[in-house]
Amino acid sequence: MSQRDNLKRLLAPRHLAFIGGRSMARALKRCVEGGYQGQLWLVNPQHAELEGVPCVASVAELPCGPDAVFIATNKELTVQAVAELAAKGAGGAICYASGFAETGAEGQALQARLLAAAGDMALLGPNCYGLLDYLHGAALWPVAHGGKVVEQGVAVLTQSGNFAYNLSMSDRSLPVAYMASVGNQAQIGVAELMDVLLDEPRVTAIGLHLEGLNNVPGFARAAHKALQKGIPIIALKTGVSQIGAELALSHTSSLAGSDALYDALFERLGVIRVSGPVSFVETLKAAACGQLPAGPSLAALACSGGDAGLIADYAERNGLSLPKLDDSQRSELAAVLPGYANIVNPLDFTTAIWGDRDALDSMLDSVLRSPADAALLVLDYPDQASGERPQCDLLLELYCAALARHGKLGFVASAFPELLPASARERLHAHGVAALQGVEDGLAAWGRVAHYQQRRAALLARGESALLPICPQALTGQGRLLDEWQAKQALSAFGLPLPQGLLSTPGQALQAAQALGYPLVLKVVSSALPHKTEAGGVALNLGDDQALQAALEDMRASLARHAPELPFEQVLLERMAPPPLAELIVGVKRENGFGLALVLGAGGILVELLKDSRSLLLPTNNAAIREALLSLRSAPLLQGFRGRPAVDLDALVQAIRAVADYAGEHAEQLLELDVNPLLLDAQGAVAVDALIRLAQD
Amino acid sequence: MSQRDNLKRLLAPRHLAFIGGRSMARALKRCVEGGYQGQLWLVNPQHAELEGVPCVASVAELPCGPDAVFIATNKELTVQAVAELAAKGAGGAICYASGFAETGAEGQALQARLLAAAGDMALLGPNCYGLLDYLHGAALWPVAHGGKVVEQGVAVLTQSGNFAYNLSMSDRSLPVAYMASVGNQAQIGVAELMDVLLDEPRVTAIGLHLEGLNNVPGFARAAHKALQKGIPIIALKTGVSQIGAELALSHTSSLAGSDALYDALFERLGVIRVSGPVSFVETLKAAACGQLPAGPSLAALACSGGDAGLIADYAERNGLSLPKLDDSQRSELAAVLPGYANIVNPLDFTTAIWGDRDALDSMLDSVLRSPADAALLVLDYPDQASGERPQCDLLLELYCAALARHGKLGFVASAFPELLPASARERLHAHGVAALQGVEDGLAAWGRVAHYQQRRAALLARGESALLPICPQALTGQGRLLDEWQAKQALSAFGLPLPQGLLSTPGQALQAAQALGYPLVLKVVSSALPHKTEAGGVALNLGDDQALQAALEDMRASLARHAPELPFEQVLLERMAPPPLAELIVGVKRENGFGLALVLGAGGILVELLKDSRSLLLPTNNAAIREALLSLRSAPLLQGFRGRPAVDLDALVQAIRAVADYAGEHAEQLLELDVNPLLLDAQGAVAVDALIRLAQD
Repeated sequence: MSQRDNLKRLLAPRHLAFIGGRSMARALKRCVEGGYQGQLWLVNPQHAELEGVPCVASVAELPCGPDAVFIATNKELTVQAVAELAAKGAGGAICYASGFAETGAEGQALQARLLAAAGDMALLGPNCYGLLDYLHGAALWPVAHGGKVVEQGVAVLTQSGNFAYNLSMSDRSLPVAYMASVGNQAQIGVAELMDVLLDEPRVTAIGLHLEGLNNVPGFARAAHKALQKGIPIIALKTGVSQIGAELALSHTSSLAGSDALYDALFERLGVIRVSGPVSFVETLKAAACGQLPAGPSLAALACSGGDAGLIADYAERNGLSLPKLDDSQRSELAAVLPGYANIVNPLDFTTAIWGDRDALDSMLDSVLRSPADAALLVLDYPDQASGERPQCDLLLELYCAALARHGKLGFVASAFPELLPASARERLHAHGVAALQGVEDGLAAWGRVAHYQQRRAALLARGESALLPICPQALTGQGRLLDEWQAKQALSAFGLPLPQGLLSTPGQALQAAQALGYPLVLKVVSSALPHKTEAGGVALNLGDDQALQAALEDMRASLARHAPELPFEQVLLERMAPPPLAELIVGVKRENGFGLALVLGAGGILVELLKDSRSLLLPTNNAAIREALLSLRSAPLLQGFRGRPAVDLDALVQAIRAVADYAGEHAEQLLELDVNPLLLDAQGAVAVDALIRLAQD
Repeated sequence: MSQRDNLKRLLAPRHLAFIGGRSMARALKRCVEGGYQGQLWLVNPQHAELEGVPCVASVAELPCGPDAVFIATNKELTVQAVAELAAKGAGGAICYASGFAETGAEGQALQARLLAAAGDMALLGPNCYGLLDYLHGAALWPVAHGGKVVEQGVAVLTQSGNFAYNLSMSDRSLPVAYMASVGNQAQIGVAELMDVLLDEPRVTAIGLHLEGLNNVPGFARAAHKALQKGIPIIALKTGVSQIGAELALSHTSSLAGSDALYDALFERLGVIRVSGPVSFVETLKAAACGQLPAGPSLAALACSGGDAGLIADYAERNGLSLPKLDDSQRSELAAVLPGYANIVNPLDFTTAIWGDRDALDSMLDSVLRSPADAALLVLDYPDQASGERPQCDLLLELYCAALARHGKLGFVASAFPELLPASARERLHAHGVAALQGVEDGLAAWGRVAHYQQRRAALLARGESALLPICPQALTGQGRLLDEWQAKQALSAFGLPLPQGLLSTPGQALQAAQALGYPLVLKVVSSALPHKTEAGGVALNLGDDQALQAALEDMRASLARHAPELPFEQVLLERMAPPPLAELIVGVKRENGFGLALVLGAGGILVELLKDSRSLLLPTNNAAIREALLSLRSAPLLQGFRGRPAVDLDALVQAIRAVADYAGEHAEQLLELDVNPLLLDAQGAVAVDALIRLAQD
């Protein structure tokens, strides 16, 4: 049986076994209490029973290879148990023990033995809390947890057991189908779990809490599958600050930064990125009912002007539109609501009709007869002592019924997160109505899923999500620099347009110049002199033979001072480019373990003022390049700024594509690449300078 | 007695009276239950007692004028009761009734009668929920509320009764000293309340929930007082989107937008602006204990790597620094913590020492022996069933004791907001340790108060906060435009530098040109032609008599086509300015009811790409202008960009000051002012074009 099939067994187990002591007996009892229906075994060689649960002495004595096993022994015994379970034909095992690869070389060797022992058996961990499976009531988990069995829900995969533990306790009524703490990901990791979970139709969304990805291509394959199926992936990636600092920054990476590569990966695949535990949970809740809004428009309701004001602000901030009420809605509402009511969307329906079933129904019917993609009700439950809770319950009941009557998707948000009690949340979730806590976080969460859904088709059409990112071998060292002529010729072979130019010796420069025609640029060519401008190795806008002659003499003198060891042997003569409409920097950045990214940035004076760049992982395609260009802050400069002509965008995309293709072809050796500047005008693009650094052969 | 003295009585009442029916008897009982110690009376002409509370028949029968009265009668009777109470010498009255100015002209007239009836008696409302006073246990409030008496706490002032109601129920353990719903602010408004509350030493911070301000100078005076006293003002201003749209936008306001004026006001006064109910409550909690961190550095603790990762990210995002542990701290911690612990700040002290009092104490002593301004512990309580809560309690107890031992300010945040139970929050608050809910919101809140405290001295030194904003009369209509010559001369009189120039007729232009010297700019001068460039009324860079002559002929022909009714009578000749180092737009924007704002923005190509502007309310001063300039995104252009010289910043500030002074002097008539561009170089600034629109006399 394949590892993937075994992982499927682990995620839908007919039998569970726990290997360990007293605490495992308690874990097993929690499965029983949680409603697990399959067979349950406890393995312990020293006791006949533990906490009233009978034990078998060894894996060999189990009646069959269990679908799922939780191993809570020490690390050495864990390796042994894994071997025995694999031999017995078990489906999957969770290794709770720590002391493996996370501790250094010795632990890495032990982890290798563990992997070998598992063979094709699925193995989660080691160094993890395990798996909570609320579809089957199987808690392969060493400690308490706060969840309960659901009919459908989200899957949460995290690199932090503590995060999973707290999330299970978080009192936010997130319907969780699966929660896995992935630990060291020695064998089964985030990508493998995603792939199998996406085949379970009761999983409505996937939440990831990541410190980093150890398998970018696998992740991309799974995320693309999710995009095709319309299952949102919501990612909380931490360690932004540290990972950024760990990187050796190349020239263009000062624009991009490593975290931008995660953004690039997530953007390419439609993964929704969130910034913290609250937005993680609330965004998952917005998606958990399994029905996503077709677009970003809302018909919104509140019973105070203050709440309506918050809705208006947060809707605008999150790109959610509030279509105007039409005349018939307005006149119907005027008949129901008091004279001082402000009849607009978002509607403050006032407390005047509070508790009045007929008036509330009329009001809801008018508001929900709307072209909006979804409805929102903002409601806060005061505490029990207020005596107002029955009216709140009534309103929710009428709201859910009206949504059903109008076939409208809806959600509820409380202004203050704690003022939507668990009982109300659960009732709403049972109706497929997301119960979001906090109007600010709630509208942000709804905005994310609405934009995901709206963008999904465009992302699939763009085709980039189906391209697996390159993940070449890690490279170290400085490598070797190509000289400018070599770099330009290499890129030219892939289609990058260059100024008309000739390589020459200083002695033959005048002859070459006459062949090219003036005005010209003169540059020294040497891979030993990357900063040629500072050394006096560049002379611009030479108008005639005389100017060229003078420039050659100056250059020889300047180089003799700056780089006396360097022979003045080669020069490049190029036609001087006319002033461009815009300039770009096009770079390729290598991040070991992640891949290669193409970085597009505004050039010239804007590079420092705008910090304006976009990253695309390689391989990419023309549609993605075009979209990245048009999403630059400086994009107006490309599109006919202040009455000037637009640049030739097709030619620009082709030029960038040439850089991307070169990088793809040389992925195994490429350390650094910069085209700076790429000059743009209405007739095309031209690369005025280029730098390539390759690993030593 | 002055209205202010009467307001003081309302806020520290020796006796309360309620005027109304059964629900007022219940409100009165809630005061008794809440521990109110003073005298209590109920006024109702129809009943001898209500809900067991004896009634007097009229205000006249009260033994004296009560310090505080809640009036819950209808609007007509409210006016009558206010008159009777004023005559009786009452301190303050809260008018719950609605139907006043918020409903239109008739209600406005009634509100004027109400105001007249109150005289010097303090009057809160009408159309408000009233006042919760948790220092004295006085709930002048018509419905239930969730708070309780405190020894010190924050004051919350809101324009939404519903917001106050929900906030009082919000289960976040915010210590509230006062909560006021201000309603129509007919007499006592946000500014008056702030002013008096700032004299109460038990008020540690003030929270404002605003839809807008009706008294900007009064607000500024009170906020400056708060800044002097070091009492943070935390503002949630809503209606951003609507107010923005309501405004007629002048040329520069497309850069600024009305909400930017609130930002400018808040920035000037050190008011902390937050975006929603959660950040409002958590930021108030961070300030509520009355001790603010001296700076932004933190010594941070968590018991998982996942939490430590979140701390690192949110600290960086909020400008909070995490000083490195020193060698002695590292070696001490290595002795206490397991080998796999990562001994850095933020410290994951691991669960290995969980529940171990001595080890935890050693660990805390090492970490808190830190130069950091404050300590942070991230901790989540699992639910009761986990059995882990006593260990959590122990950790908090040891943390509070260690903070006290080290004289260190500290706070606690849970990763998930709900996982810091009320009992733990209250225990922490009793130790002066803020209990913040959600590590993301918590670190953002802490960052706000830390930066407030750090910035306070600089703001006071800048001196702008003491200048009362101009709040001139409202103006309507288009007004009249000055021609360019008039506008420039008007500004020049205040010190704005202009290019050397002469006003002339077309016929005498050559003569004027010879007096000035070439190269020159020629412009038509007419207040009827604001868009002179489009009409061919501007010719640049004229090098000699011949070029000027040709330009005059072209201009005459072009104007004849574009503006045939316009006589070609006046031209301005100015010396052509050399290419500048940078360009700015300097404008003045009038917002009726708010004031005048000076808007400074990047000019030239950057105006559209960077949307780069700062607004300063008038009057302002040189220090504020300089700081605003240096906070522009394009500020690097002013400071010697890429090896170019820096602009003359003193001269630039003087030039902008000239515009501000002109606007201040003409505040009652000025509708619009634009200097665009103001050209900057190392020698100074020069205004190349100027537009002024004044109200018709």
